[in-house]
Amino acid sequence: MDQTSDLDAAFAALSHPARRAILARLAQGEATVNELAAPFEMSLPAISKHIRVLEGANLIRRSRKAQFRPCRINPEPLAAIVQWTQEYRHIWDARFDALEAALNDMTPKGGDDDD
Amino acid sequence: MDQTSDLDAAFAALSHPARRAILARLAQGEATVNELAAPFEMSLPAISKHIRVLEGANLIRRSRKAQFRPCRINPEPLAAIVQWTQEYRHIWDARFDALEAALNDMTPKGGDDDD
Repeated sequence: MDQTSDLDAAFAALSHPARRAILARLAQGEATVNELAAPFEMSLPAISKHIRVLEGANLIRRSRKAQFRPCRINPEPLAAIVQWTQEYRHIWDARFDALEAALNDMTPKGGDDDD
Repeated sequence: MDQTSDLDAAFAALSHPARRAILARLAQGEATVNELAAPFEMSLPAISKHIRVLEGANLIRRSRKAQFRPCRINPEPLAAIVQWTQEYRHIWDARFDALEAALNDMTPKGGDDDD
């Protein structure tokens, strides 16, 4: 997979709230499919499908050794997304700078509301 | 739209390379649909469809006043994505710390390869 299709797959995988919730659970530590399914009102096949999407996007990895093949986060695609957003950082920095300047202009000079 | 569906829409919109390329162009400044279509080997209706997806995800805004309704980036969903990734930052920080420690362990102590 080239870098473009890596990003395609990562963004697509993250577009579903259940998959983001699975990642949030795995941020606490590795978990089996059964452990991941427990807090969700979702069938095991539905959870398994989401896990396969996350695995396909390289966002999670599953142990090949252990009997229950626990899942764990692979943070590399998340780091790639953050790196991709950095191209746009100057736009929101500029926006916040403008907002800050506008707020400073609104601040009454020389004292508070004792008029 | 609540915050969850905002993120759903932003991630889904960003999963297509043409839409990321349109954003990259708009990072240089606002542009009309015709200007956006020019560098792509894509029909105007195809570009327009991608623009509608980006607009639906609030990633771009179009002027209501000007005749050609130029598009510009709205960076807020990108900032929301970065904020979302911060929950996972400790995982890749830990990964890089471990890598650095491993590299330090591999560095020969007390001199170079003059064995």
